[in-house]
Parts: sequence; C-alpha cells; structure tokens
Amino acid sequence: MATCRKLTKQLVKEFLDSIDTILLDCDGVLWHSATPIPGAVDTINKLRSMGKQPLFVTNNSTKSRTQYLEKFNKMGFVVSKDEIFGTAYIAALYLKYKMNFSGKVYLMGSKGMEEEMKLHGIDFTGTGPDHSPDNVLEHTGEVTLDPEVKGVVLGFDHHFSYMKIMRAASYLNRPGSFFIATNEDPQFPVKGSDVVVPGTGSLVVPVETASKRRATVMGKPQRFMFECIQEKFKVDPTRTVMVGDRLSTDILLGKNCSLQTLAVLTGITNEEEILRCQGSESPEERRMVPDFYIESIGHLGKLIE
Amino acid sequence: MATCRKLTKQLVKEFLDSIDTILLDCDGVLWHSATPIPGAVDTINKLRSMGKQPLFVTNNSTKSRTQYLEKFNKMGFVVSKDEIFGTAYIAALYLKYKMNFSGKVYLMGSKGMEEEMKLHGIDFTGTGPDHSPDNVLEHTGEVTLDPEVKGVVLGFDHHFSYMKIMRAASYLNRPGSFFIATNEDPQFPVKGSDVVVPGTGSLVVPVETASKRRATVMGKPQRFMFECIQEKFKVDPTRTVMVGDRLSTDILLGKNCSLQTLAVLTGITNEEEILRCQGSESPEERRMVPDFYIESIGHLGKLIE
Repeated sequence: MATCRKLTKQLVKEFLDSIDTILLDCDGVLWHSATPIPGAVDTINKLRSMGKQPLFVTNNSTKSRTQYLEKFNKMGFVVSKDEIFGTAYIAALYLKYKMNFSGKVYLMGSKGMEEEMKLHGIDFTGTGPDHSPDNVLEHTGEVTLDPEVKGVVLGFDHHFSYMKIMRAASYLNRPGSFFIATNEDPQFPVKGSDVVVPGTGSLVVPVETASKRRATVMGKPQRFMFECIQEKFKVDPTRTVMVGDRLSTDILLGKNCSLQTLAVLTGITNEEEILRCQGSESPEERRMVPDFYIESIGHLGKLIE
Repeated sequence: MATCRKLTKQLVKEFLDSIDTILLDCDGVLWHSATPIPGAVDTINKLRSMGKQPLFVTNNSTKSRTQYLEKFNKMGFVVSKDEIFGTAYIAALYLKYKMNFSGKVYLMGSKGMEEEMKLHGIDFTGTGPDHSPDNVLEHTGEVTLDPEVKGVVLGFDHHFSYMKIMRAASYLNRPGSFFIATNEDPQFPVKGSDVVVPGTGSLVVPVETASKRRATVMGKPQRFMFECIQEKFKVDPTRTVMVGDRLSTDILLGKNCSLQTLAVLTGITNEEEILRCQGSESPEERRMVPDFYIESIGHLGKLIE
C-alpha cells in the first residue's frame, strides 16, 4: 500500500478513463496569487471537452463565489459559479443548513466572507481594522463586547490583531458559544520569494490558545467540503480524483472521502515529501501519500492528446 | 508523593523556618493589573523584617526593571531594582551573555522590552503598529524585510498583527536565525470580567505555526529565570520557595529547580485544579502539584505574628 506513481503518457489514458469528476485545489495548483500556472487554462478546457466535470475546491476563504468567478474569468478560465467551492461559502452553508443558525457571529474575515454571510442571512460584527489602544492591559474592563454574539467564525483576515484575539476569546468564553474556522492551512503557497505568507491556520491557533477551545474546521481535509459538493453534483466518489499541492489537506480529503488522488508539485509539496511519507513509520503520514503525482496541471494537459 | 497541604497557622512557623528566600510571581499574586492584592504590601514587609529575601519573578514582559520599580513603588511596595526579574530583562541577558549576541533582532514587544534591549546593546526593528495594506496577499512581493535581522524576539505586543506574523515567519526562514520568546502564558489572570486577556503564549503559537519553528522560551518554568537569580543572589535552592498562581509556570519552575512551592488562589489556579492534578494519572500533571497552597499572599501575612 501507499505507493505513489508518477503520471506518465502510458498511465494517463487508464487514469482518465477511470474518472468523471476532477476536484481541483486552486492556490498552488491553478495559480500563484494573480498568475495562472502555465497550461492550467488549457488543461481545464481539454478535460471539459473529454466530458469530465471540473469542480474547484479551495480552502482559501478570502473570496466569495462571485469574487472567485471574476478571478477565474480574468485569467481566462471558463467556469460557472456553481462549480466553485470555497470555505467562505461553505462556512455560510454550515451555519445555515447544518446548524440552522440565523443570529449574529463575531466574524474574523474578508469582504468575501462578509458577502457570503449576508447572502445566507447570517448577521455579523467585528470585520475590518481593530487596533489596540495604548496600555490596553490596564483598560481591559473598557473593552466592549456585543451581547448578541453567539459564536466566532474565523477565516483569513489581514486585519488580524491582538484586539481580535481578545474579543474572540471573550466571546468563546460564553456558555454555548460555537467556534468555526474556515481552514487550518498554516501558510499560502508562494514561489520565488523570501516572504513567508501565513495562512488561516496561523490565525486559528492564537484564538484556540487564548480561549482553550478547539475550532470546528470547515475546509479540507474535513469531509464537510465534499458533502457540500455531493449535495449539488451527485458525484461518484470512486470515479472522482482530488488534485492538490498539499498532502495534509488536498490529498487527505481525497483519502477521507475514498477518492483517487493526484499531487502537483507547483505549490507546497515536492517529490521529497511524497517519498518521505511513503517510507514513513507513521500511519498518518502514509495515509497522505497520493495515488499519482505530476509536475504541474499544465503537464497533465500536455499528456492529453 | 504529590500531596499538597493548605498552609495553616500550625504549619507556617515550620515553613518559614525552612526558607531564606521567597520568589514571588507578580500578576495574580501581588496585584491584578493596577490594583494590589489586599495585604500584599504588608506581607512583603513582614517577610523582610523576619530576614527573608523577597525576589520578584514575573513572566510578564511588558515592563523593564525600571518600569516595574515604578509600579511597585506606586502601590507602596518597598523593593530594589536588583530584586526584580522580568522576562524583558532576562531575554536581554540571554542574548547578551548566553548567546554573546550584539546584532539586530526583529522585536515584537513593548516599550519596556525596547528599553532592556537598548540597555544591553541589542539593536532592533519592528516595534509599534504594523498594519496590513489592503489586498496584502496580492502584494507580498512588496513586503520589505531588514537584511540585518538575525533572529526574532517575541514578547507581549499589543500591536500584534498579521503583518508581524508574516515578517517574523519570513525572518525565521533565514538560515541560522534564532527565535526567542519571553514566555508561554496563554492568558493574563483577570478576575471579575467577561474579557479574556490573551498573554504572550497566544502570540507565540501563530509565529511557530507560520514559521514551522519552536521558540526558545525564557520565562518560567524554564530554568534560565532561576539561573539569572542565582547569578546575582547566590540563593540556596533548598531554602527557597516559589510562590505563584499558575501551576504550569510558577510551580513547575519550583519543581524544575528543586525549590519549595506555594500556590495562591488569587489568579489562575484554584483548589479544584490542584486536587485534580494531585489525583491525575499523568506524571506531568502530578509534577505541578505545589507543596502548599493558601488563599492569598495577604493570608500568608496574617498567619505571621
């Protein structure tokens, strides 16, 4: 078990014959920030023309589905809004349909998350900048909290600050409060830069530490993401592949939902990590070994005639 | 082993006869924020008049020794600067004497930490507010880093922000860089408020997560704090007691340095936690059981004739 094969010209026909649906992570698979991965647009077009259904499955909570659609279009991808599953969207689905919640939350997140909350009738407070007053430790009694807040929803928030950790931990101290996080990715995939770009996972841990609570996580590798897809597309897991650049989220989601799995090397993971996991003593690491790997999504397109 | 006794009138003479030095945590033991614990000043005076040496040992990194001295004086405590050991001060000692470091660090911390760094010849950058530009994820290539920075020093910083996590993680990605944190206390002790006040421990975890590094911790329960005390006061561990309100830092420091230990119930811990640790299956939890406990430092004073 747990052997990973490089996807080659010889293997690609058998591989494609075995799937109807291709779930694709976005950051590090289709694009880096605002730049598409070479050949990505072409590969998606080829897969569609072969009758395969591409679906876009991202832990990135910064954008609403409408904003993602704009981003896809701008880069030349042909995509419909229904095909896009981001964690801002699925967090709203979770609150509305899983929890039947319709009150107010403390929201740490982007404009995209605000938009999805509004669309699903969830009231919120807390977004935008929230800077500390000087000597905040001597004036904590003056920190105002919203009496209506029933829980905390945490996604990527570039305004993340000390005051936000304080408010979130205080709300989570209320009896019966809930704590939802979009995802736990520690960093964004970045290539060719000295800057490490912290992801939502780096924002979840301080709130968990300060509140002594664990967040309920929406995104990959949690099954809820795939439940949302199945609700809308009735996909057959045995004829579905998950394509991603991170073993601990993308590939593990595939394993958790009994899908086929394909790793690309344009983001977080590399051959070395895959080989290390393959030879690992740890069952958790062996579980993250993909069925296949390939240099990039563009290389997959090139293998298709 | 691991039985904790309540300090009573009957026990107090034997207890005091067995010690020359009394190490006292500050937050939750001597004061809450700007308010002294009732009887604290009087207790310290009584201990001094009995020939006991009080030393003040705090994980709180917000103040320099000079600033602590002012705080002590304002509340009526009679204290000399040499008797004060805070983590802003000992972090500077660590850099200067343990590491023989004299270059530049990325400093996440307060004015008090700036002061101690300056006093010990450590150059720094990064303090004060550091807010994200909008769309920071699309402009990470424009984030400026200081080429001279050799490591990260993290203490309590009420300006803690997303940009600071990003910069710290980027500096920690440099080969040979070091990562020092003043302490890991997840919260400050607060009484009678709905507001949870995150401590430095809640600021260490996001930087550790984003950088995939572990910080070297200066404060309690690490032995370095006691090494700094011994360097200056030549105390005899067997005739020293550590008094504190947190089992995982104060009491554990005492255990790590073979001191006697006394817990007070005016801060983080309570009788319930002490009893739970005493009956715990976990050796780590049993190790945190203090030798004695008492309601407050003021109650100790009352037991002394």
